[in-house]
Amino acid sequence: MKKFIYSEDLIDYDINVSNLIKYKNNVNISNKYQNKVLGLIFFNPSLRTRLSTQKAALNLGIKTISINVNKDSWQLEFEDNIVMNGDKPEHIKEAAQVISQYCDIIGVRSFASLENKKTDLEDIIINSFVKYSKVPVINLESAISHPLQSLADALTIKENSKFKNPKIILSWAPHIKPLPHAVANSFIKMCRLCNFDLTITNPKECNLSKEITNGFDVIHDQNTAFKNADFIYAKNWSSFENYGKLIKPKNSWTIDTEKMELTNNAYFMHCLPVRRNLIVTDHVLDSKNNLTINQANNRTFATQYILDKILKNEK
Amino acid sequence: MKKFIYSEDLIDYDINVSNLIKYKNNVNISNKYQNKVLGLIFFNPSLRTRLSTQKAALNLGIKTISINVNKDSWQLEFEDNIVMNGDKPEHIKEAAQVISQYCDIIGVRSFASLENKKTDLEDIIINSFVKYSKVPVINLESAISHPLQSLADALTIKENSKFKNPKIILSWAPHIKPLPHAVANSFIKMCRLCNFDLTITNPKECNLSKEITNGFDVIHDQNTAFKNADFIYAKNWSSFENYGKLIKPKNSWTIDTEKMELTNNAYFMHCLPVRRNLIVTDHVLDSKNNLTINQANNRTFATQYILDKILKNEK
Amino acid sequence: MKKFIYSEDLIDYDINVSNLIKYKNNVNISNKYQNKVLGLIFFNPSLRTRLSTQKAALNLGIKTISINVNKDSWQLEFEDNIVMNGDKPEHIKEAAQVISQYCDIIGVRSFASLENKKTDLEDIIINSFVKYSKVPVINLESAISHPLQSLADALTIKENSKFKNPKIILSWAPHIKPLPHAVANSFIKMCRLCNFDLTITNPKECNLSKEITNGFDVIHDQNTAFKNADFIYAKNWSSFENYGKLIKPKNSWTIDTEKMELTNNAYFMHCLPVRRNLIVTDHVLDSKNNLTINQANNRTFATQYILDKILKNEK
Repeated sequence: MKKFIYSEDLIDYDINVSNLIKYKNNVNISNKYQNKVLGLIFFNPSLRTRLSTQKAALNLGIKTISINVNKDSWQLEFEDNIVMNGDKPEHIKEAAQVISQYCDIIGVRSFASLENKKTDLEDIIINSFVKYSKVPVINLESAISHPLQSLADALTIKENSKFKNPKIILSWAPHIKPLPHAVANSFIKMCRLCNFDLTITNPKECNLSKEITNGFDVIHDQNTAFKNADFIYAKNWSSFENYGKLIKPKNSWTIDTEKMELTNNAYFMHCLPVRRNLIVTDHVLDSKNNLTINQANNRTFATQYILDKILKNEK
Repeated sequence: MKKFIYSEDLIDYDINVSNLIKYKNNVNISNKYQNKVLGLIFFNPSLRTRLSTQKAALNLGIKTISINVNKDSWQLEFEDNIVMNGDKPEHIKEAAQVISQYCDIIGVRSFASLENKKTDLEDIIINSFVKYSKVPVINLESAISHPLQSLADALTIKENSKFKNPKIILSWAPHIKPLPHAVANSFIKMCRLCNFDLTITNPKECNLSKEITNGFDVIHDQNTAFKNADFIYAKNWSSFENYGKLIKPKNSWTIDTEKMELTNNAYFMHCLPVRRNLIVTDHVLDSKNNLTINQANNRTFATQYILDKILKNEK
Repeated sequence: MKKFIYSEDLIDYDINVSNLIKYKNNVNISNKYQNKVLGLIFFNPSLRTRLSTQKAALNLGIKTISINVNKDSWQLEFEDNIVMNGDKPEHIKEAAQVISQYCDIIGVRSFASLENKKTDLEDIIINSFVKYSKVPVINLESAISHPLQSLADALTIKENSKFKNPKIILSWAPHIKPLPHAVANSFIKMCRLCNFDLTITNPKECNLSKEITNGFDVIHDQNTAFKNADFIYAKNWSSFENYGKLIKPKNSWTIDTEKMELTNNAYFMHCLPVRRNLIVTDHVLDSKNNLTINQANNRTFATQYILDKILKNEK
């Protein structure tokens, strides 16, 4: 395995999720890779990803070096063939080559701009690192993909499901800012790769990319979608068609106890951070059906599993 | 020992200070806790605390992961039952539970707001971490408490005192900004727990909380207070009664050679950072009676002692 | 060896460069200095230096603790005998003494102000650390010196030169901001210490300090200078005489293929970050004669060599 940028980079995804359950239960803290260095490049803030990735590395004996681009260093240029006389003093060509000389693996976090649909869809930042880096690259959330989150989510679903093929709902929920599509995209891809029974529900004006949702039902009535669900995965995202535009907070889409009662005593999931009483009510989050803390914990094991696979150079 | 938030969390405080002297003299660098992770959460800047805590952890083989809240990640919400539609995208309930899954101990630094007396006195940030974290929490300076500083101060006094019961003066000194009460509060608590002979001196308009100073003399004439003192501990703090208000720099309270000559050849102490020629003159700081550098060094050993005690799960 | 602030601190410089080639080829990752702590103090942003220094430390088993002054902590005062009632709450006297208690070596990065020629020439920040620190200090780029960059450059030249005494050109190149003299200064000093055949070329209005260039030819016609060169080292710097003033971008000085064809198939060097198509064209950078990535890689080995020498306490 040479990179983990999109969920499909993990061949035999569903078998790997099963293996990951066993892996988690047999995790030993070791100095297995004590001479390896993981470089973490953050273009955006991070709490869970920053900590869980370092924790995963520690568990394997890997040393981490972190850089906050723009804060610790400076802005990078990603366009080719331009005269660099603006506010970006270094080109990704140099930066990626140089950084990859100091590291054995590189992790990159760079959110969508939500301004330039073309470069966001090309996932230009993470893919430039892949292109110019001499070592494997893992995705700590890019413009359109958050595969380590989804792998942790798959693990959480498999660990908690009472049924072989649970009914999963990905539900849009309100937010005050326009948010990227990365988490929703990767969750849907993961469900496809795991053959999960997924239904998506969102207001009409905020369908995700058809390329992504292709093959899954998209229902615009949240109550109908929730019926008999076993897992409710909540997430906000901005408009895809009217790219990056905020869909005004529709508080009727906030997930509350009443809606959860339509389900089959479903678990509640969210990638965090979650805005309480906007995305979901306190009552749902403080119930025993809340899996968000487990999801966050599983980030460590998902990341550790992938790091291990890459360093063992396994397919 | 499950936490170190207030000085009184360390049972048999004075015996522990004596043990700490021996501990310091027998410090071995080891990999004793090489599988343990210490998470450091900074809501405010830090130099000594940041470095000495990492040094203490290194001496014990503990790995540290640091987060600068607001810079590396984002602001946290501490109020309950509110609709999170403002500038704080994550609630402490989630953050503390999540972080504590990645760590074996959490250290938190969060200064007083000096704006809301009630939440400052409740020490809401650090206590929320204690409430929601699944692992022990140590205080790297909270709104009203800085117990690791005071433990280092106790060690410094015991190491340097020529007498069994030295006369200690906690003296207010001028500053250009309103400062929190944490250092002064914890110093006073420590003196009580060690049965030290403490007198406090400050201008009339800036008495500390009576609950804290209860039982100690508070003298408003600095020169009188300094007579025959063995240790002068200088610190600025803002008004407690007129909460958080700046007491205008009174340069007559700056500690200088003339005042030090009233003492019994006293040592000078301060927690640092110290503003030269405002809090204290160059001459005093550059004299051999200056213990501030020793205090800073002792931060390492005080923290190491507490980390060791918590990980050994000692009372 | 007690410090590495200026190139001349490395005695028998040219012998050491030869030793460094062997050192690099025999680098073993070890835990040789596993109880040692390297403190990295950044007053300015850093990418290569931050990563390569940590990588060098990792290779030797040294633990690193980093501080971003102004971001993680606060501003430091460097002036003596002043009343500290401004925006700098801590004096270097305290900070350096304190930090050096937690570390075995300190690395400091602090660029030139380009505002105060006198304090820049005195290199006041790094030299204050040397003065007050109790442990060795290494220079991660100061106001007027960047010796670890030049040591990596010397290594790169020796590794790649086809001749015993190659012709080296240090060429000014255009930039949009006034830049410090540190890299150019140290490159020239290194060439002197290595007995390299160096010629400097820059526009008339931006000669470097005569004290630095003394003994080397300075040619104001770039094309003439490039003839028969084996190495072109490009760098921008601001005016020395008209201190810190920007020399307006002269695009005629941009290094392009046409100019490189005047040389003896010369290698292209630059310390990075490099502004493409301003300092040098894409075509030159993307050619096989580009050594900038090698230079960056050699930063690790140069730093590791110096850290090792200091910790072994070798001359």
